[in-house]
Amino acid sequence: MDLKRAGNQTVVFANPPVILSSYSVVGPKEGQGPLGKTFSKVWKDQLGGAKSWEVAESLMLQEAMQGAIDQAGIPKDHIDYMLAGDLLNQIISSNFAARQMTLPFIGLYGACSTMALGLAVGSMLIDGGFAKHILVGVSSHHDTAERQFRAPTEQGTQRAMSAQWTVTGAGSVLLGRSGEGPRITSATIGRVVDFAETDVNNMGSAMAPAVADTILNHFHDLQRQAVDYDLIASGDLGAIGLALATEVLKQSGIDMGTTFTDCGVMVFDASQDVHSGASGCGCSSVVFAGNIMSRLKLGELKRVMLVGSGALHSSTSALQGESIPGIGHAVVIEARKE
Amino acid sequence: MDLKRAGNQTVVFANPPVILSSYSVVGPKEGQGPLGKTFSKVWKDQLGGAKSWEVAESLMLQEAMQGAIDQAGIPKDHIDYMLAGDLLNQIISSNFAARQMTLPFIGLYGACSTMALGLAVGSMLIDGGFAKHILVGVSSHHDTAERQFRAPTEQGTQRAMSAQWTVTGAGSVLLGRSGEGPRITSATIGRVVDFAETDVNNMGSAMAPAVADTILNHFHDLQRQAVDYDLIASGDLGAIGLALATEVLKQSGIDMGTTFTDCGVMVFDASQDVHSGASGCGCSSVVFAGNIMSRLKLGELKRVMLVGSGALHSSTSALQGESIPGIGHAVVIEARKE
Repeated sequence: MDLKRAGNQTVVFANPPVILSSYSVVGPKEGQGPLGKTFSKVWKDQLGGAKSWEVAESLMLQEAMQGAIDQAGIPKDHIDYMLAGDLLNQIISSNFAARQMTLPFIGLYGACSTMALGLAVGSMLIDGGFAKHILVGVSSHHDTAERQFRAPTEQGTQRAMSAQWTVTGAGSVLLGRSGEGPRITSATIGRVVDFAETDVNNMGSAMAPAVADTILNHFHDLQRQAVDYDLIASGDLGAIGLALATEVLKQSGIDMGTTFTDCGVMVFDASQDVHSGASGCGCSSVVFAGNIMSRLKLGELKRVMLVGSGALHSSTSALQGESIPGIGHAVVIEARKE
Repeated sequence: MDLKRAGNQTVVFANPPVILSSYSVVGPKEGQGPLGKTFSKVWKDQLGGAKSWEVAESLMLQEAMQGAIDQAGIPKDHIDYMLAGDLLNQIISSNFAARQMTLPFIGLYGACSTMALGLAVGSMLIDGGFAKHILVGVSSHHDTAERQFRAPTEQGTQRAMSAQWTVTGAGSVLLGRSGEGPRITSATIGRVVDFAETDVNNMGSAMAPAVADTILNHFHDLQRQAVDYDLIASGDLGAIGLALATEVLKQSGIDMGTTFTDCGVMVFDASQDVHSGASGCGCSSVVFAGNIMSRLKLGELKRVMLVGSGALHSSTSALQGESIPGIGHAVVIEARKE
């Protein structure tokens, strides 16, 4: 069997896996934003009846995954693997969701790039012949992330203008070996790139060079350019990071034209006081599962690149003076040709 | 193409990936244990010249990965992916190692089951046609784990008799699509099993039911029994967990005979005061990369099952009163037939 590879970093699927369904659950603030109507479900508060924000995040992830299963109408015991990840220490949102789902579970950590990473790895496992159906789910929660990475949430510490607002949300997709729906045609797993950003209130800048590196390698591997895509969406660079990634690419001779945007600039509007935009694993997962999937299914978008962006630091590494390593993972999704 | 699956949970590789090399680096206490001579390198102290234990853990992982690359004699740019994981929040040991390796990086979280998880996923990516070479690396460090999960390390809190000692060590293997070496022939990805253990000083009990579940499903899927293996080694159940897993399997009608042991009972001897045994991601990774790989290469072992065991809690989930979800991932490694 020939290797299913193009260039140095990209794999091209022989039988592109199908996205059979997608489901998104968000918190109230996300529901009030410009994409509000594109989410499958909006919670009325941040807890959803749970006793802690951490339990709530895991419940939200379970709801999204169950929603994707129900929408596809695939019996749960026909699902071979659950791939999931989140931002919490030891990815507990995913672990406790996996306990409830009782599916064979592969835990991933790619920080906010996890949705794209899950789609890439899940597609490889399906196209490689190891699974018929794979459930991918990713979550984040504003209040769990705030107190884990920054300060006690209730303290209401003033946020820097370069800061982003962690999305409370969970997105899930069910991948299948065959069926109807948009298909994942290629994937580019990223390398860690670190431009020595140490400001944990400026994640967009930390991740932008890695996103640019992955886009550059993807274009090189497939001999493509930005105009070959209807939409190229990074995960959660926010306004500052998006501008920086565009500039880095420009300096490498790549014109991103008008198709390059960022899930982190789509979720909230200026009135919602989120400064540089949205962030968190949930950000790209709910924008992809909601807005982008709808537009692919309507035929409004034919070929999309989702470039998940992750900041791979921890509170400990930041306190020890380390810079923030960034990573970007890309997957290409295409509407099925008529 | 037919699905490469047997039963509900097991995949069987069409072209079993080869373990081209393996390398292990450990701390001084591990070097003084009964397996001391089987490790590739023993550090003289816990820091290895680094300014913090966290930085030391990442350096140790880099050393193990570079050792595996050097031993295989494969140029680094022929390696398609690096798969790695560890116990630290946001898997920073792996992230910072990935920054130095500059390879396309897939971050995994399976707690102490990560070596087996990495071997399983890496094998699927190679057998699926997505990579020629994959580097798998996993680490833990006694002092980083102690202060993250329990109490300040320097405090020297008295340890419960059911507690295990986190291994300071990193193991790495280089998987190849072809070449000489033991081969990975099948893998069973585990489900989360939770028997409501809440004692964070008794991880062996928390993980034992999940290990038993995976072994049971593996046997069922491949229509095998314990005598079909020369060695079945769980990751880090320790003495208490190993006895419990054996008992759970017995009650399910499975006689594990004399081939079932645990990497956590192999690393230290009774004089080293580690109570129920060794633990940590590093435990099964260094025992596999050292002792087990040597015996496979000598032909002393023909068919081995490594069942990585993971406790999927965090300090936060434990403080919130949650029980400890367990998981077990199995890979089967066979000496190449003459």
